[in-house]
Amino acid sequence: MKARKIVMEMDSYVPGKSQDEIAAEFGLNKEDIIKLGSNENPWGPSPKAIEAIEKEDININRYPESDLRELIEEFANYSGVKPSQVIVGGDGADEIIDVLAKTFIDPEDEFIVPLPSYMYYEYLLKQYGAIPVYARWDMDANKLDVDSIIDSITEKTKMIFLCSPNNPTGTLISKEDICKIAEINEDILIVVDEAYFEYSEVTNKDLIDEYPNIFIIRTMSKVMGLAGMRIGYGLSSEEIIEYMFRIKPVFSLTRLSYVACLNTLRDKEYIERSIKDGIESRQYLYEELSKIDSLNVFPSKSNFMLIGIKDTGFTAAEFARELMSRGIIVRDCTSFKGLDEYWIRISICTLEEDKIFIDKVKEVLS
Amino acid sequence: MKARKIVMEMDSYVPGKSQDEIAAEFGLNKEDIIKLGSNENPWGPSPKAIEAIEKEDININRYPESDLRELIEEFANYSGVKPSQVIVGGDGADEIIDVLAKTFIDPEDEFIVPLPSYMYYEYLLKQYGAIPVYARWDMDANKLDVDSIIDSITEKTKMIFLCSPNNPTGTLISKEDICKIAEINEDILIVVDEAYFEYSEVTNKDLIDEYPNIFIIRTMSKVMGLAGMRIGYGLSSEEIIEYMFRIKPVFSLTRLSYVACLNTLRDKEYIERSIKDGIESRQYLYEELSKIDSLNVFPSKSNFMLIGIKDTGFTAAEFARELMSRGIIVRDCTSFKGLDEYWIRISICTLEEDKIFIDKVKEVLS
Repeated sequence: MKARKIVMEMDSYVPGKSQDEIAAEFGLNKEDIIKLGSNENPWGPSPKAIEAIEKEDININRYPESDLRELIEEFANYSGVKPSQVIVGGDGADEIIDVLAKTFIDPEDEFIVPLPSYMYYEYLLKQYGAIPVYARWDMDANKLDVDSIIDSITEKTKMIFLCSPNNPTGTLISKEDICKIAEINEDILIVVDEAYFEYSEVTNKDLIDEYPNIFIIRTMSKVMGLAGMRIGYGLSSEEIIEYMFRIKPVFSLTRLSYVACLNTLRDKEYIERSIKDGIESRQYLYEELSKIDSLNVFPSKSNFMLIGIKDTGFTAAEFARELMSRGIIVRDCTSFKGLDEYWIRISICTLEEDKIFIDKVKEVLS
Repeated sequence: MKARKIVMEMDSYVPGKSQDEIAAEFGLNKEDIIKLGSNENPWGPSPKAIEAIEKEDININRYPESDLRELIEEFANYSGVKPSQVIVGGDGADEIIDVLAKTFIDPEDEFIVPLPSYMYYEYLLKQYGAIPVYARWDMDANKLDVDSIIDSITEKTKMIFLCSPNNPTGTLISKEDICKIAEINEDILIVVDEAYFEYSEVTNKDLIDEYPNIFIIRTMSKVMGLAGMRIGYGLSSEEIIEYMFRIKPVFSLTRLSYVACLNTLRDKEYIERSIKDGIESRQYLYEELSKIDSLNVFPSKSNFMLIGIKDTGFTAAEFARELMSRGIIVRDCTSFKGLDEYWIRISICTLEEDKIFIDKVKEVLS
């Protein structure tokens, strides 16, 4: 059996190390490992989500409802848009990106992504035969090089990905820049990834009423504390949402994801506290890490920050390994296109964990 | 914005009625509705699955592990194959079918499916530009018309779907017929859907060592009682499994689906009892319904059965509505290609529910 040409040319899949493997390799207690690698909410899920799960779990022999109406209304309410402008996905924002590709991408279409940015856009879109065209994130100014986007547009351009706050650089793309790009050609879909928008307290969702070619990606995996339940959503014009529903997987959201999501969205106190605590942790980490001369700490509007470590004498792989042997997981950013081998990304943690992390960094650098 | 041509030509999505809507429309208590529409396990999930969920739910703020090794080993163990012959999906068998299409289907490829059979193959494969070619299920003999499959093969054929036991007809495709079809051209993938195999006590999994072009689809949604957690798996040659892992969504299985699945597979007592009770219910339903002259009840090797109702004077839509007004959901099969408007499909239920169902059927027909 031969797979499609594009699959035959891909690399084999190598899963990341499991927590168990890391614990075994370094002789650590699995429970003691501090996770700064995946931009999760370190304070745990909403108690309301847990309560809802434990009430619903006797029904998991039943298929989920195909009608997501109640949840869609809650997302619309949270986002300040109409229910008909909302789509929900069952594999986090990843499913939303996949459905976007399936709805709009024909083989040989081009998509533009500035480097560095979230790598999964490319992983998914290439599967549909799309061709990546790279624009530039200005690392010195830590902002999008808008002209590099505009210069990359051709008549084959179908989508442009703008992650704001941008992963892994942490800062925002201005609304002015997004509008400028969206106005160029209304047949190009501008995908604004707002996975981390709550931490920036800025959203571009108001643009979907003005621009029929803007699509906002959101997720329940970050501030909402539900990374393990795989829920994403998207906001856009009614026309685009309706197209996507035609081909979206019908049952991809589990019964427990559904109730966890609904009850987290209704837990306003949890959401507010998660944002507040996240911003506080970010400020603390930024201040403390900035005191360390050999680190180039990027300011962030998100729940993570990028750190250049060239002056430490370590590569990112070496630095991450030193920290891992001390029970701390950070993101070695070497695999991000557009970054060299001297960058790590860390997520906010509880203040207690932040302190341990900073002590361990100092230990490695001493 | 224009979507892809294939999406523009599709119908808009209309979700099924929710339980709440049905209850409201007919003035029913939601909890009292008896569900014979979706081939679920009516006895609920394994208590071990619930226990595992309630232990793990405090960690749902964390991403699932990307390494599915422990679960894959448990599937291999349950299925009697090597771990390298197993792939796991996070949206039930639907994700497995989607990944199959993404791995193997180029636009204009043809796939063969006998009618009637499971409709979701076509729904998914068409999204990849594949063209359905229909073969024939012999409704009089209630068996696959093998020649109709063989006659449908062209040089464009990429996949052949053989659902065994076949949904909605309920009976098996013989191993001899599967081999005969698989031998014709080893570049055609033979997809054997064993979603319901436990109820038939027959599997074709031994064929994957002999035929590199056979792929077995399985699910946790039926006998395993986890329809709401969306877990599917596939068994095939190491080569095919490795291709599929290259493009499979990495995190599509939720943390709670993972532990629920692992602990259900280990609950041998639950699995055995679910099969035994399912077969007992099926026998009871078959015997009792066969006594009703105007029903044409198909014998079944699955957890559902197909019933021709032409002689009742009702169409399937009318009959289903009559039952729904009495608190019973059955599947009106009119939307199955290859069936006319006089067929319903019912799932096994608990014996108590079976009895209520039969009483209500008699009431409708009296």
